[in-house]
Amino acid sequence: MIHAYAATAPGGPLRPFDYDPGPLGVDQVEIDVLACGVCHSDLSMLHDHWHLTKFPLVPGHEVVGRIGAVGTHVTHLAKGALVGLGWCSASCLTCRHCLAGDHNLCRSGEQTIVGRHGGFADKVRCSAEWALALPSGLDPLKAGPLFCGGITVFNPIVQFGVRPTDRVGVIGIGGLGHLALQFLTKWGCEVTAFTSSDSKRDTALALGAHHVVDSRDESRLSEIAGTLDFILSTVNVDLDWAKYLDALAPRGRLHTVGVVPSPLLVPAFGLIGSQLSVSGSPLGSPATTATMLEFCARHGIAPITETFPLSRVNEALAHLEAGKARYRIVLENDLG
Amino acid sequence: MIHAYAATAPGGPLRPFDYDPGPLGVDQVEIDVLACGVCHSDLSMLHDHWHLTKFPLVPGHEVVGRIGAVGTHVTHLAKGALVGLGWCSASCLTCRHCLAGDHNLCRSGEQTIVGRHGGFADKVRCSAEWALALPSGLDPLKAGPLFCGGITVFNPIVQFGVRPTDRVGVIGIGGLGHLALQFLTKWGCEVTAFTSSDSKRDTALALGAHHVVDSRDESRLSEIAGTLDFILSTVNVDLDWAKYLDALAPRGRLHTVGVVPSPLLVPAFGLIGSQLSVSGSPLGSPATTATMLEFCARHGIAPITETFPLSRVNEALAHLEAGKARYRIVLENDLG
Repeated sequence: MIHAYAATAPGGPLRPFDYDPGPLGVDQVEIDVLACGVCHSDLSMLHDHWHLTKFPLVPGHEVVGRIGAVGTHVTHLAKGALVGLGWCSASCLTCRHCLAGDHNLCRSGEQTIVGRHGGFADKVRCSAEWALALPSGLDPLKAGPLFCGGITVFNPIVQFGVRPTDRVGVIGIGGLGHLALQFLTKWGCEVTAFTSSDSKRDTALALGAHHVVDSRDESRLSEIAGTLDFILSTVNVDLDWAKYLDALAPRGRLHTVGVVPSPLLVPAFGLIGSQLSVSGSPLGSPATTATMLEFCARHGIAPITETFPLSRVNEALAHLEAGKARYRIVLENDLG
Repeated sequence: MIHAYAATAPGGPLRPFDYDPGPLGVDQVEIDVLACGVCHSDLSMLHDHWHLTKFPLVPGHEVVGRIGAVGTHVTHLAKGALVGLGWCSASCLTCRHCLAGDHNLCRSGEQTIVGRHGGFADKVRCSAEWALALPSGLDPLKAGPLFCGGITVFNPIVQFGVRPTDRVGVIGIGGLGHLALQFLTKWGCEVTAFTSSDSKRDTALALGAHHVVDSRDESRLSEIAGTLDFILSTVNVDLDWAKYLDALAPRGRLHTVGVVPSPLLVPAFGLIGSQLSVSGSPLGSPATTATMLEFCARHGIAPITETFPLSRVNEALAHLEAGKARYRIVLENDLG
């Protein structure tokens, strides 16, 4: 049996929940959970905002743990290995996207908490290609958030060829944004943080941002018009996108990883005149995730975390929902 | 004196108009106009849709002619050389965009018919970097439309790295679209033409399109969901962009070169899930334009044109405005 916390209806609460996962698949591994990050997507799934949720729902898709069992076909991971697991938990391995290394774009892939049970538990399973070895130098109790929040903002930097000579902006300094600031400053870029929170200004500067712009200040936004090569938006709320498009330099890109509620309004004139792009992206592939982990180990990049025992998961979720997390919550497994 | 046709008020008509261009700039050339294409942008400027127009307006920015005079600093062009001139007529040559080869993105550049007089005339001037030599093999009386319509659709193919292995779509089979079809089929791509006009279906196939999709047919659009790597929209009207985003394969791009009236509505969910981009671009640089002209000469690419004498310019404009041009109108200089 796997001991977990599950919600049985939209909004929760989560309660102890045991389930029998059946026999381990030949291509699967079972992870003994050490810790699991809490992501906004766990809340979205809990509230069934995306109409994807099946109840009972065991959230949790920022897992770090040790391999407890391996399927008979798995040869590259051994019992005891320290690994992480994020949003994706299986890919077909044979479609053109998987074959091209884009396992994250696989159309018949599986997501850790969609129609199956996640990491708010003592054990969780996945296909072996999505259990990624943690390099030495990363703290297992802090690394969980890299597997969803981290790779979500690292992936577009790689996919869209952000260069160390670029001037970049990050909108929203939260769980994702505070990691994006670290990635982009270590990447070599000139980094501007956009935030409407005075309390986050100092954090942004401490994390290496060269400039902080109050996103409520229209005149400051006008001052930087035409200067940024890449703006990464991490927020889940509708913004005045045209304002940020104006901040882009010719050839610039506005990229969102936040599932904002309304369609983005993108005026054609500016797009055309300055050869701009607007884009989005999901989590990264296993290979990109491994690259990110090495980059984090080399540069000492880690999330700023608050820790709760797993048994206080409802308190942790309420803390996140209230917008109080600074900057990412990690649940330590205290089951059994 | 330069003999031209000008409108003195929004909407025209154009009437004979002579003006003294003053001394030739040291970095300029004067072109004796042989022929000049008629572009939708001429109509937009004539009606002052973009609030950029100064009257009297001499439209015309798809010029082919022979160099009649060269400024004292111009060394690479000689009298008698056959050249073309498009939307841009000068760049600063020293900003970071010009220095990077992106003269088309220069912020202090000059456009042929914005605040100066264009090619519906016996002569027209420009800075020498924008007078581009016509390779042998191109018909001077048909090549004009390449300098605006042509480069507008060729440029994004280069800028965004469209590959010969890509599946691509072209929305709108008109002056721009019929050139895009030729470029993309010769580029090696599998090409789908989107049109709501039955009469254009055969033309699209004759120009090399592998598939034609009736853009009014929702079921056909659903059938091709997730298949196209690049969609180039050449139309100036608002579309249901989400439908075309659905047609994109993961990593796909929807690109507009048409200044559509309303902001594009771009849902974040699909953008993120499939790592899609939405973009726009203006005319290409002198270097990209020269590359396009060589590509046209090598592959026998030319616009399908209807010819009017310049003296019947109002008739030509009315023909275009009525949506009757098949597919690009060229005015032959019959002045003097």
